[in-house]
Amino acid sequence: MTQNIYDNPEFFEGYSRLGRSVQGLEGAAEWPALRALLPEMQGLRVVDLGCGFGWFCRWSREQGAAQVLGLDVSEKMLARARADTIDQQITYQQADMEALELPSGSFDLAYSSLALHYVGRLDRLLMIVHAGLAPGGRFVFSVEHPIYTAPRQPGWTTDGNGSKTWPIDAYLVEGPRSTDWLTKGVIKQHRTLATYLRLLTVSGFAVRHVEEWGPTDEQVAARPELAVERERPAFLLVEALRQP
Amino acid sequence: MTQNIYDNPEFFEGYSRLGRSVQGLEGAAEWPALRALLPEMQGLRVVDLGCGFGWFCRWSREQGAAQVLGLDVSEKMLARARADTIDQQITYQQADMEALELPSGSFDLAYSSLALHYVGRLDRLLMIVHAGLAPGGRFVFSVEHPIYTAPRQPGWTTDGNGSKTWPIDAYLVEGPRSTDWLTKGVIKQHRTLATYLRLLTVSGFAVRHVEEWGPTDEQVAARPELAVERERPAFLLVEALRQP
Repeated sequence: MTQNIYDNPEFFEGYSRLGRSVQGLEGAAEWPALRALLPEMQGLRVVDLGCGFGWFCRWSREQGAAQVLGLDVSEKMLARARADTIDQQITYQQADMEALELPSGSFDLAYSSLALHYVGRLDRLLMIVHAGLAPGGRFVFSVEHPIYTAPRQPGWTTDGNGSKTWPIDAYLVEGPRSTDWLTKGVIKQHRTLATYLRLLTVSGFAVRHVEEWGPTDEQVAARPELAVERERPAFLLVEALRQP
Repeated sequence: MTQNIYDNPEFFEGYSRLGRSVQGLEGAAEWPALRALLPEMQGLRVVDLGCGFGWFCRWSREQGAAQVLGLDVSEKMLARARADTIDQQITYQQADMEALELPSGSFDLAYSSLALHYVGRLDRLLMIVHAGLAPGGRFVFSVEHPIYTAPRQPGWTTDGNGSKTWPIDAYLVEGPRSTDWLTKGVIKQHRTLATYLRLLTVSGFAVRHVEEWGPTDEQVAARPELAVERERPAFLLVEALRQP
């Protein structure tokens, strides 16, 4: 089973205070770029892998999705998602992404925001997602970028002039990384960008868009602290189509 | 016109002493991985963009290629390539990759080793290569990896324990980088990995394989100094097919 770090009290407390937890989708700087990869939502059957507090599930219904299934490993997050939702067409279920099962051909859109880099058996999961999509279905997801997950000791280095660099090592050494983010010992799975592409391809997806996210000029003007995100990409955004 | 650094005497002298210049293809650690992306060469019409001393052109003929066109910006390299070649089916021509023209539908394989990261107008070049390939034709190339080209001051940092990191900055800031390699002021063009993929797609290529090169266990056993190449990928290898 994937480490369920979200039910760690310290992690949950810290995560609940992040902009993306308090403000929802608009609190995530990469959301406009991810949204741009989504299809017209009207009438779609949607599954959200790692739905957290359910922000995307509710947004999908506001956009006209027919049914939404929100899956997450964290009971705490699901409890809050259920408490924040009054919509019979949204279902929240506890699920371990390592052992996920989905009904075959049942979804038009699979979505996942910043969850897949916690999953060890991504090859298995992608095959399940592929089989769960109807022909022509789409998979849109974000993960922490491999440049972000690679280092054994991730973090910025600042030189005497205040210039920041992001030292990389072990990029080609795939596997778990234990990092301290919100709490100690958060386990992420580092994969290269080439591996993400290869796993999608062998699972039967055609990769339509790959984006190494950085802030727009407008975002940097509004929030100058985002400028540093151009020094190294934190997020990888992908749009893939189920091949028939 | 692309900076013709290869005709700089100091650069040419240094380059001529590299393993890949002295030993040819076998002197390049990434060659086995690049070769694995090549089709059966028998009877193919081949163009080599940035042919240098002509090692790949001659290898192609040894593998049964029908005709080979070697293009390079460097007159010095072409002079040596011509001097080292006695084969009527290999033609060497001086060409600036920024202004390249190719006869339409005339090649089955386009190949380029570590040359495209010098080219400013890659969008234009890819359209020329696409049009120069016959339907079903293949483009196999290597470039310096974006992680390698990104930093304003590229190089390893070594900590007190001898561990090496490769500090990244400006990854999302595309454009020229002036670096000192063999001589001062070598101009390379930094592009993100997503941009390479996007430019290929909009030019009409289907990307079939993306590889962030690292040494095999056998290579590290034979040459332990290669192990550090696993800390960050130096080369990006791509196989793309001309879409009909």
